[in-house]
Amino acid sequence: MKQMDEFGTAMEAEILEAPAAIATATAAAAEAELPRPTGVVLFARGTSEHAALYGRYLIEALAGVPVMMGAPSLATAFRAPTGLDGWLAIGVSQSGETQEIVACLDWAAERGATPLAITNAPGSALARVGQAIELGCGIERAVVATKTFVAECAALASIAYSWSSADPEWPRVIEAAKHEIAARTDEVLVRAIVEARSMTVLGRGYHNPLALEIALKVMEGCGVWATGMSWADLLHGPIAALPPGSTCLLLGESGALSASAEAVVTRLNDADVRPYVLGTEGTPIAEPLNPILEAIPAQNAVLAAARQLGRDPDSPAGLTKVTQS
Amino acid sequence: MKQMDEFGTAMEAEILEAPAAIATATAAAAEAELPRPTGVVLFARGTSEHAALYGRYLIEALAGVPVMMGAPSLATAFRAPTGLDGWLAIGVSQSGETQEIVACLDWAAERGATPLAITNAPGSALARVGQAIELGCGIERAVVATKTFVAECAALASIAYSWSSADPEWPRVIEAAKHEIAARTDEVLVRAIVEARSMTVLGRGYHNPLALEIALKVMEGCGVWATGMSWADLLHGPIAALPPGSTCLLLGESGALSASAEAVVTRLNDADVRPYVLGTEGTPIAEPLNPILEAIPAQNAVLAAARQLGRDPDSPAGLTKVTQS
Repeated sequence: MKQMDEFGTAMEAEILEAPAAIATATAAAAEAELPRPTGVVLFARGTSEHAALYGRYLIEALAGVPVMMGAPSLATAFRAPTGLDGWLAIGVSQSGETQEIVACLDWAAERGATPLAITNAPGSALARVGQAIELGCGIERAVVATKTFVAECAALASIAYSWSSADPEWPRVIEAAKHEIAARTDEVLVRAIVEARSMTVLGRGYHNPLALEIALKVMEGCGVWATGMSWADLLHGPIAALPPGSTCLLLGESGALSASAEAVVTRLNDADVRPYVLGTEGTPIAEPLNPILEAIPAQNAVLAAARQLGRDPDSPAGLTKVTQS
Repeated sequence: MKQMDEFGTAMEAEILEAPAAIATATAAAAEAELPRPTGVVLFARGTSEHAALYGRYLIEALAGVPVMMGAPSLATAFRAPTGLDGWLAIGVSQSGETQEIVACLDWAAERGATPLAITNAPGSALARVGQAIELGCGIERAVVATKTFVAECAALASIAYSWSSADPEWPRVIEAAKHEIAARTDEVLVRAIVEARSMTVLGRGYHNPLALEIALKVMEGCGVWATGMSWADLLHGPIAALPPGSTCLLLGESGALSASAEAVVTRLNDADVRPYVLGTEGTPIAEPLNPILEAIPAQNAVLAAARQLGRDPDSPAGLTKVTQS
């Protein structure tokens, strides 16, 4: 039986490995030398699906390649006759052993796509479907994934940039990640999570996937029900049901969407909700890459909140590292 | 000032118009005679986005055309250089006046796609971008949309079937919808919504969009926070935060995903959550079309629950019929 002062020791160590994870993942992605496809279809679940969705935004925005988030049921249950000649099908799975995602990649290959695995497990079932980008960030022990989310995002960003003329400047990103690692935990955010009965995490554009991911971390790590969504979607109905005084975290309020963010903050204040805004202190990097950095302080805050709540994010009740469904 | 016994009179009348809405929408879609495209990109928000997502499943499953859910920020804020030659870009909007969706369709046309509007408003800004399918189901007065959701789903299903060899048998679907209209309101479901502090609505495959839509109706109509999601996603983390005894509605437990549904019900029971299962009493129709029918009893239950909660779904506080963001 684990002692309470051992709660989250694996998660803590793994958050610290984020800069190294960015380095190995981007190096592996560069080595893959992927040719530009007609389209990209992405398959993943949970944290890996949020990384995949982040890749969806970057691949379309930077490279102009159409990207579709694959619906696993279409592949596994309905056997859709989708025409995928010339497409790249990417399965993203930390463990490489989520059978549903392996089946999706097999299906996509049958439909004409070139299969590619992004995984942290060399020789895993997913890695054996076709070409594989191995994240190389070492075994992840905590059930609440941290470094592999950062690594998956970085690998997908690396692919997106490889099909564009822009330079991601990875050494600069890695330096900035080290800065985030060394930064103090945001105690105001920690208290907000600890005291929340439920949470809403809002992000748009490049930050939408990170909003979904932080909401998932809060649920897995802290046992607090959390909903991640685009703030644009919030205004199309859900705002009518947001309890006054509820806990709301807003990401990505600077950049191309700053005017949109400002408008939603005004609407939230009208609804008696004061959103907490997450930012980073790191070196400035290209706007599309900011969510990779911002994941780090958010993961740190979830870890600290979980400990204050007496919960162990290394092995939360009811969850396992590999989900089969 | 409206009297409480007038609450939801528009919504009630509009739910009754569902069979007629299916008839006019599918007739308009058939008249459009759309050629099969290389791919489809869909743009919508709120209820229309759920109809679009339903279309995404049917177009891929029945016609094998790749379908991408467009990210509005990529079109409007990031001006992604997406290559859409040969693609059909569909903007779905009841009012046809959501400027963001008009801008998305303009962007897609600039990127090479053929623009198509699905709207209930002839001559609206969206209808003027290119070809338009007019749903023809008359003005919708209630802010909580019902008949236009059914009509948008039917129009998109009609497009999907037109690119396949299968026959949707619309007259049979319309008869089944009349049966749903005449069915008694499900009082157990109504009580479940009225007593819920928050709700989870689960659906997978063809039923995933309806799960998102019912959750939105519960929020808009009843002011109860609700989360719609795939039950497969629930198992990848959120189940750890589901409060014991919380209110959970499950859709689509029969058909190709019945084994998957059974597995999630077992997991929910282990977590002390007893899901309420929604079905219909209608004539059997093709599996992909079932969600169109099942929308009707769900909308009826939301209307009854809203009235019991003393809320007016025709004009909920804080919401307007056309959302600009």
